[in-house]
Amino acid sequence: MRKVYLDNVAAMPLLPEVREAMLPFLGDIFGNPQSLHSWGDGARDAVEEARGRVAELIGGSAEEIIFTSCGTESNNLALRGLARAKAEKGKHIIISSIEHFSVMNTARSLEKEGFEVTMVPVDGQGMVDPDEVGRSIRPDTVLVSIMLANGEVGTIQPIAKIAEKLPKNGPVFHTDAVAAAGNIHVNIKELDVSALSLAGNQFNGPRGGAALWVKRGVRILPLMDGGIQEGGRRPGTEDVPAIVGLGKAAELAKKNLPVKVQRFSRLRDQLIEGVLGKIEHSILTGHPVQRLPGYASFCLQFIEGEGILMLLDSKGIAAASGSACTSRALKASHVLLAMGISHELSQGSTLFTLGLDTTEDDINYVLEALPQVVDRLRQMSPLYSKFLKEQKG
Amino acid sequence: MRKVYLDNVAAMPLLPEVREAMLPFLGDIFGNPQSLHSWGDGARDAVEEARGRVAELIGGSAEEIIFTSCGTESNNLALRGLARAKAEKGKHIIISSIEHFSVMNTARSLEKEGFEVTMVPVDGQGMVDPDEVGRSIRPDTVLVSIMLANGEVGTIQPIAKIAEKLPKNGPVFHTDAVAAAGNIHVNIKELDVSALSLAGNQFNGPRGGAALWVKRGVRILPLMDGGIQEGGRRPGTEDVPAIVGLGKAAELAKKNLPVKVQRFSRLRDQLIEGVLGKIEHSILTGHPVQRLPGYASFCLQFIEGEGILMLLDSKGIAAASGSACTSRALKASHVLLAMGISHELSQGSTLFTLGLDTTEDDINYVLEALPQVVDRLRQMSPLYSKFLKEQKG
Repeated sequence: MRKVYLDNVAAMPLLPEVREAMLPFLGDIFGNPQSLHSWGDGARDAVEEARGRVAELIGGSAEEIIFTSCGTESNNLALRGLARAKAEKGKHIIISSIEHFSVMNTARSLEKEGFEVTMVPVDGQGMVDPDEVGRSIRPDTVLVSIMLANGEVGTIQPIAKIAEKLPKNGPVFHTDAVAAAGNIHVNIKELDVSALSLAGNQFNGPRGGAALWVKRGVRILPLMDGGIQEGGRRPGTEDVPAIVGLGKAAELAKKNLPVKVQRFSRLRDQLIEGVLGKIEHSILTGHPVQRLPGYASFCLQFIEGEGILMLLDSKGIAAASGSACTSRALKASHVLLAMGISHELSQGSTLFTLGLDTTEDDINYVLEALPQVVDRLRQMSPLYSKFLKEQKG
Repeated sequence: MRKVYLDNVAAMPLLPEVREAMLPFLGDIFGNPQSLHSWGDGARDAVEEARGRVAELIGGSAEEIIFTSCGTESNNLALRGLARAKAEKGKHIIISSIEHFSVMNTARSLEKEGFEVTMVPVDGQGMVDPDEVGRSIRPDTVLVSIMLANGEVGTIQPIAKIAEKLPKNGPVFHTDAVAAAGNIHVNIKELDVSALSLAGNQFNGPRGGAALWVKRGVRILPLMDGGIQEGGRRPGTEDVPAIVGLGKAAELAKKNLPVKVQRFSRLRDQLIEGVLGKIEHSILTGHPVQRLPGYASFCLQFIEGEGILMLLDSKGIAAASGSACTSRALKASHVLLAMGISHELSQGSTLFTLGLDTTEDDINYVLEALPQVVDRLRQMSPLYSKFLKEQKG
């Protein structure tokens, strides 16, 4: 059976070059970067080289990079560390209503420490209105965290325009770029942010290799206490293989970005046009233009994401119905609900995320299989029968 | 030049079997364990198998294992998560004065949240007195955290005896077993603890693969917020290769433990006897008997650890002067100071930690090289000249 993997947001294979770069650090170069003897030298050099590569990917400086274990940790460190460092100045935080759970739940958790959280809404395409962020600013606002791109519907936010609305020397502006970095052009100066989260596993790098960039001079408190690694901002023995893999993935992502963006956008548009054309009562979720190149996300009416995924899987196709971080909770996506999509329609959420090996034939295969899957599920759907009756009547 | 690596506490090579077990998960089996399609199945099965292996190493149950990114995170999660979960019952914490920084600094950090910390002292061999812990218990004591074995001097604490001193249904008892697990027999029932930290990189497993065991029924709050991974207790995409490597390392550690303990103890004693016999004004630090099998730790008077490490390095020997987590801070070890060793003497701290490939010849080579290194440094040492003059006078 043909295998078509279109769930790259949940997991993507390592690039062979990334794996090759990591292997020596799972072998002979096993030293601790903190060691004072020569066994540590190779590891230390490799960590610092990777730090430079990650900084280059986003236009920052190496010493502004804090390595973390995953995107969730980067976001937790950002929200807690930046907010707590400014708690004496104020306790108001602004986020959007479609942030990843690692931002949204962390903000909510900070409410227990006396912080107040304003959630700015998004429009039907998942877009934040910069003016709305501007209007939400208060004298005690110390942190604004708006994601660069959404990991469920792919909408890319106007971060630079939001930055313009923030008062000078006002709140720290953090952006969760986990879904974006390595997939679209990201530059911290152009975005005009002070902190940015990224994760290697979103651009064919390893899990365990992620980072938070924090602009020089911006104070951040650590999430954990321990040794002096990462300048005390992230203690714990460095996961050198993962850091090296992240660095290599960052280097390759930067180099290959233009080609990847063009290729992904073309295949994505082929998939979107095909689905909308072939499947009645289907809608595209997220912004039609300002969206991640590799993201094709839909709501398919009258049926449920879980069933769609199961039947697609039986045809060799991997897709998602939302964030892998909550897929097994089987709840309606807070992102779709925030975009004004009904609870019922949001059940039919289906997300295809492209990978480096995705071909036009893969897309054609999905466009052949998906309508069959949808037809079959709708034939069993009470909602669809009801709809048909109402149509007739 | 001969190479003798005796800094295994800072970093140790992966066992070939561990690397082999990890490689497929850096390759074809790249799925996300949370995925609902078949690409996730292999990853999910592997994570659950590893969970069982880790539980077996310490005599716990699989569902009591929370995977984390490192020992520091396990300790942070334990201290913060267990203390905060019981904050309404009381805010008193007991730790020892020789805990790793990830316990000690985290406890101090909790003071900012209103917790009070009692640090029980240790004797000259780094041993905690169970009665002293018992006497420190207060009605509002909610957490006791005493390490199983110290990572700088190797002293093994009488955890089971300490547990006897704790009131029934009283404080949660956590032990930092990062230096111990995989290196000595560890069983949570025999120790009678409610939480235990361990890390794969201390028994030839990968960095990125660590765990906190928390007894069923003991409440713990997460350190981070995000998705539903690890039952919500540790969100973030699972680092499957690291978890698989941890599981394999746990399996092998359990299997090979008796042989390793015997072999390490013999080589360690050869090294200790040799150093104490050949080098004047040298003392063994830590307990002479209740110590980790692979740990030979000394203070060599009149000279400094940094110099010792540099000259040993020039002879192809890797050693440490204390915790790698603070080695570059070049401060006197809080562990040695807590044991009553003078600030001056603690400067000459030197720690050799054995590895699976350490041979008798390696030990002989160190016993040949170290006296030369010490002689050379003492010839340049003002403290040593002063001492000699005083001897004569």
